[in-house]
Amino acid sequence: MNAELASLEARLASDRARIDAWLARLFSERLPAAPRLEAAMRHGVLGGGKRLRPVLVYATGRVLGASVDSLDAPAAAVELIHAYSLVHDDLPAMDDDDLRRGQPTVHRAFDEATAILAGDALQTLAFEVLSSAETPRLAALIRTLAAASGRDGMAAGQALDLAAVGGHPDAESLAMMHRHKTGALIRAAVRLGALVAVAEDDPRLAALEDYAQAIGLAFQIQDDILDVTGDTVTLGKASGADAARDKPTYPALLGLDGARAKALGLLHDALAALAPLGEGATPLADLARYMIERDH
Amino acid sequence: MNAELASLEARLASDRARIDAWLARLFSERLPAAPRLEAAMRHGVLGGGKRLRPVLVYATGRVLGASVDSLDAPAAAVELIHAYSLVHDDLPAMDDDDLRRGQPTVHRAFDEATAILAGDALQTLAFEVLSSAETPRLAALIRTLAAASGRDGMAAGQALDLAAVGGHPDAESLAMMHRHKTGALIRAAVRLGALVAVAEDDPRLAALEDYAQAIGLAFQIQDDILDVTGDTVTLGKASGADAARDKPTYPALLGLDGARAKALGLLHDALAALAPLGEGATPLADLARYMIERDH
Repeated sequence: MNAELASLEARLASDRARIDAWLARLFSERLPAAPRLEAAMRHGVLGGGKRLRPVLVYATGRVLGASVDSLDAPAAAVELIHAYSLVHDDLPAMDDDDLRRGQPTVHRAFDEATAILAGDALQTLAFEVLSSAETPRLAALIRTLAAASGRDGMAAGQALDLAAVGGHPDAESLAMMHRHKTGALIRAAVRLGALVAVAEDDPRLAALEDYAQAIGLAFQIQDDILDVTGDTVTLGKASGADAARDKPTYPALLGLDGARAKALGLLHDALAALAPLGEGATPLADLARYMIERDH
Repeated sequence: MNAELASLEARLASDRARIDAWLARLFSERLPAAPRLEAAMRHGVLGGGKRLRPVLVYATGRVLGASVDSLDAPAAAVELIHAYSLVHDDLPAMDDDDLRRGQPTVHRAFDEATAILAGDALQTLAFEVLSSAETPRLAALIRTLAAASGRDGMAAGQALDLAAVGGHPDAESLAMMHRHKTGALIRAAVRLGALVAVAEDDPRLAALEDYAQAIGLAFQIQDDILDVTGDTVTLGKASGADAARDKPTYPALLGLDGARAKALGLLHDALAALAPLGEGATPLADLARYMIERDH
């Protein structure tokens, strides 16, 4: 491992530990009104995971000069939205998955009704946490998170994904689905981190939007590649699941080499987008590289 | 019909028409990213309904001097949360209902996956609408709505309700379940209307909280009574459904006469709570009476 990568890994581990502790505190030191619901929510959000979205909030905010304390609540909020979406995506009526992050999915560990409610309450908790944050531009932060999560963002992407199963979309339709399903929340993570530090009319927001757009799709392509080349133990979820479900993927559309070339092209776009931010944006460049070089 | 009741009915009809039009505009004049999801959301929220929560937002805000324009977004947000909860409560894994407001439930009219997503996106839309509102104390409004909807409010109540089916809770457990399941959002509606008009430390907020607590439980008791005495056509949902499911209810616990006496006692409490607000609070008193005299 070279020194640069070692330093990135150390920062990732530190950010993950920070957000894990912050999320865990949301569930400690309180007497829950409905203990089983609370346990299912904990299971849905505290089971590990890459914490990529919080890492992006922290990295972007730090690059623009925000204090790390002011980034905790936005980082937690975006992860809570991500966690709720996984709990619902795994449901029998959706992807019907048994395994997530190496653990039984929430509806397998509890039951279907509890998993629906736990996902619902994790979404609500995201907005509760964010609305309690002590940061400037709070309304803009909440609008950003809501717009990215709902009918014009992640929820639309999930609906398009359901509609695409068994079909044969072209590269444009596939990109549009991913731009909503995973891209919207990744863009929101970058924007949340930025808005803690700078005003809505700061020109760096547009550059960061381009950066986030590129890494969002690159991340998804790498996910598709890992579903083909990875193994279940490393991934913490079933590998080969996309093909088994006849889900459209980039390797299916472009071949493995074509998908890898596309991801590299997007990495190039992401790095180019960061140019106006100068040397200070190196941590974001490192993250972009990491996202398409990861093996899980 | 006496003149007072006629005037109340006219005001209710006017508030309902206003919020219906406002909600309908959320779904017009736009090209949805995922048309089927959008259609399911419309089905879930535009199918009529009593619009009790928006009516409470408008009534409370007006009593304290807010302009009606400033109350639209909070009224819509609380109704969107209510609509999302109905879509999810009706799901096969939850109450498994086929009929709602005289129409097929969302998962019957569409499919289960789409109904889960539509409920999710209706919740998100509530926070998107509210965070875009132009009112003072926006963060407090969002915190109020989130706290009422989530793991310490409505979602907890639904979890407690699921756990109670087939059991024999006492009056205290039943009240605790309802205080969360329906009461929390009714209290939030009153508080949202109030916070548009007055600051968080205004002493009238405490009086209104007592008022809302009493009418919230009275409303639920009347719901239980109507499930026994009403008919399916008037209710727009299956009557006798609680008994068929062995759900604990006030009539089952106290008898019909006992349940009616309890509702009247709560009406008395609600009217007493309004005393510090003086003559100006008459519309809220009228609403409290209406809620336990309604036949659907």
